[in-house]
Amino acid sequence: MKQIEHLVNRIAQRISINLRELDFDIQPYIRNTIPMSQLVKFYAFYGITPHHPLNFHFSHSSLAGSYFLGKSRVDHSILYKSDIRGDELKSKGDLFKFDGGVVPVHEDESIQIKDSFLIKTLVHNYSHDPESLEVFFINDSMSMHYTNIHGSPSEGCFFQPFSTIDLTTAHDCVIGRYSYVQVGEISHIEVEPGTIWIKNRSDFNFLYRYPREILNRYVQYQPGDGPPTGIFMNFIEERKPDFKHIYDVVNIEPSISIPKGTSLDRYAVIKRKTHIEENVLVAQRAYLENIWLGKGANAQENCYIINSRLEGYNVTAHGAKIIHANMGEKVFVGFNSFLRGSEDCPLTIAKNCIVMPHTIIDLQEPINIPESHLVWGFISNSSDLKHQSMSLQAFSEIREGIVLGDMLFEGSGEKFVKGFQNRIQHILEANGAFYDGRSNRGHAQKNQKISFNTIQPYPEGDLMGLYPTIEIRP
Amino acid sequence: MKQIEHLVNRIAQRISINLRELDFDIQPYIRNTIPMSQLVKFYAFYGITPHHPLNFHFSHSSLAGSYFLGKSRVDHSILYKSDIRGDELKSKGDLFKFDGGVVPVHEDESIQIKDSFLIKTLVHNYSHDPESLEVFFINDSMSMHYTNIHGSPSEGCFFQPFSTIDLTTAHDCVIGRYSYVQVGEISHIEVEPGTIWIKNRSDFNFLYRYPREILNRYVQYQPGDGPPTGIFMNFIEERKPDFKHIYDVVNIEPSISIPKGTSLDRYAVIKRKTHIEENVLVAQRAYLENIWLGKGANAQENCYIINSRLEGYNVTAHGAKIIHANMGEKVFVGFNSFLRGSEDCPLTIAKNCIVMPHTIIDLQEPINIPESHLVWGFISNSSDLKHQSMSLQAFSEIREGIVLGDMLFEGSGEKFVKGFQNRIQHILEANGAFYDGRSNRGHAQKNQKISFNTIQPYPEGDLMGLYPTIEIRP
Repeated sequence: MKQIEHLVNRIAQRISINLRELDFDIQPYIRNTIPMSQLVKFYAFYGITPHHPLNFHFSHSSLAGSYFLGKSRVDHSILYKSDIRGDELKSKGDLFKFDGGVVPVHEDESIQIKDSFLIKTLVHNYSHDPESLEVFFINDSMSMHYTNIHGSPSEGCFFQPFSTIDLTTAHDCVIGRYSYVQVGEISHIEVEPGTIWIKNRSDFNFLYRYPREILNRYVQYQPGDGPPTGIFMNFIEERKPDFKHIYDVVNIEPSISIPKGTSLDRYAVIKRKTHIEENVLVAQRAYLENIWLGKGANAQENCYIINSRLEGYNVTAHGAKIIHANMGEKVFVGFNSFLRGSEDCPLTIAKNCIVMPHTIIDLQEPINIPESHLVWGFISNSSDLKHQSMSLQAFSEIREGIVLGDMLFEGSGEKFVKGFQNRIQHILEANGAFYDGRSNRGHAQKNQKISFNTIQPYPEGDLMGLYPTIEIRP
Repeated sequence: MKQIEHLVNRIAQRISINLRELDFDIQPYIRNTIPMSQLVKFYAFYGITPHHPLNFHFSHSSLAGSYFLGKSRVDHSILYKSDIRGDELKSKGDLFKFDGGVVPVHEDESIQIKDSFLIKTLVHNYSHDPESLEVFFINDSMSMHYTNIHGSPSEGCFFQPFSTIDLTTAHDCVIGRYSYVQVGEISHIEVEPGTIWIKNRSDFNFLYRYPREILNRYVQYQPGDGPPTGIFMNFIEERKPDFKHIYDVVNIEPSISIPKGTSLDRYAVIKRKTHIEENVLVAQRAYLENIWLGKGANAQENCYIINSRLEGYNVTAHGAKIIHANMGEKVFVGFNSFLRGSEDCPLTIAKNCIVMPHTIIDLQEPINIPESHLVWGFISNSSDLKHQSMSLQAFSEIREGIVLGDMLFEGSGEKFVKGFQNRIQHILEANGAFYDGRSNRGHAQKNQKISFNTIQPYPEGDLMGLYPTIEIRP
């Protein structure tokens, strides 16, 4: 597999050049994290439906275990068990709203990944960037386990495990493990691990940072030592065997009944006693066990929902985990959040709550979060709630700013809350939560029938692990 | 699935135009043979190895259940459970021998199928045609169940069930069911069902025709009535359930040990008590049960070998069936032959025999065919052998011609026998029977590690059953 080693070197060199100002050494990360032999073990796959723009181009790349939907292009890259979902990209003729005006989109947008190395990364959503309407690019970048690159064109970046970059364009940056960044545009900075940072120009700025000793319990990483460790990885590894069967068979019959308007991806794991209602979207690589999912709820890629009841219109974002919880209607749980109750210490979250991305609620006692609250940071008991939650009403009344525990907020609380609520509404709409049998179709309806196609690399020789050049067009 | 119905009409119209002189109505064949709903049920697949020229192009076609290896292009066609193996095509720079001279091949040859409808058809081997060295074309043609189109460029042709066209270019012809044609070039003729016709310019002409009542027992077909009927189809249908599992799972471990130099395709069915030796090629869709396959033997696509022992260097060609037989070394069994002994009436064929393509040996008593004999036609007991076999020695001595039973031979018996022997030698070489660990690599060695990739059509809507445009290059 000589060629693929050249490719790894080529990617490492490019990222190093981009990160030279930060004096960051990418080599131990890129070289030791995935054994090259893994790259021939897993098939990649892509979905075909009449409802999605179909346009794939793969060249000089390894795609082991990766999944593609929509319009995307991958060149000179290694995508290991990643999800590239280009099914919410902008279309030719769309009008992109910006600064009170509109910019017409002159061709269908595509995701373009080049000279990059992504590991178990979710790439999704149209890019927010008004400077690059038609291309959502990821160039000269590396992302580690369970990163989300969400509507965020990136070049020369390194995303550490469980980090999320959301609606942000990033140039030559390092994002620390379990950090969440949604700030519009950044360049040449290193974001410290465990940082939750949301900024909208001069409107507001939200900043929280996990205490290092807590963060390390959940996700730790030593360059050169292989995959990350900690509670997050242990939790995922324990459930890995459940995925084996779904990748081993070609066709799989759903084990539960699928109501009207609902889609259950054939690559999701559904365990005992799971019930789902209408207009639900269960994405691939979601894991559901002993749960009730109410109407219009969605369970996105890499999420785990176990021993829980979600009343309806719940968003469980990419990578979020919910265990032993009762959630009222329209509770939003952001990216990579980890909400773990237990039989003795259940978690109750009342309706209309917003659980911020990258929130950890890991209970030592039962807690109840009242309706319409915003929750963030690390919570293990009721007293933590005092400094890590606030009613949406109270938050909306913030005019200048506030400091609460490890959280700093500047600007308009109202704009922050409104922004979040609008986005949740958009997510529910896009996922088809409000489908009435005729209008408001979304992913839940469009993804009901997908043809899955599988691709594999050269099985031996110099090209071993690399995929041939593949182009798929309508 | 509106588009695919247009495509069927388009293909039917084109074939009708080509066959207008023969006054042949293709409509009932093309319309009722495969229910359109079948076209979305099965995935197609293609193999990738570093040893085969890799170049696929599929557009505006349905490929349900079809398999591709090597270099091929399919446009505006329906290929249903067909095998397109472009792994023995001519390469750029090859020198094609013709009439004592050589013609250089100026680019890699490819199989190109256009405006055609092939059902369970095997397309293989480089084309023999000196007029079209770089393209092995199949245009405006239809082939029915278990046809072999072998090195035979064809346009405007209709191949009826279990027919074979071999090293012959055909223009606007109809080949009757279970007919075998190897005559160099034909145009505007209809070959009657059950005809075995081998002709090499003025050197020789071999002609045998099955009595109609015998033929009808084995393969019968009424236009418009669905698939063909008879013993051949019954035999295949009974064994169809054994194939289900191998298409249902993604990876499959071989159930028997695979010696050095041998390849066992992962899409072959291997049942109890099967043993295979070195340098054996077992192709996909081969079916082996309770057999011993000696060194350098090959079992080609759609063949069935059951309760038999083959000593080595045996060729079991595409679609041949061998049941309860003992075969000496280097016995050749041609395309679609049906050799059925039973426990009480075993078939014994001694070494170096040539069983002609499309031979039926269906025994009511045990028979022994002595070494170095040529066998053809229909044989059910020893007395049939008198008119349907001859020693290669005696056959080689034919100078002018001979009439024996239903067989007519004109020309040089020696050239006929030599031609056959050379071809058998070529097949063994190409399949890797003589691999010594270093040189003489053939299919058995090159096919040991294949990555299988699966593709599926649009699952619903107007395009249902059609595949997107796909291009795969190195």
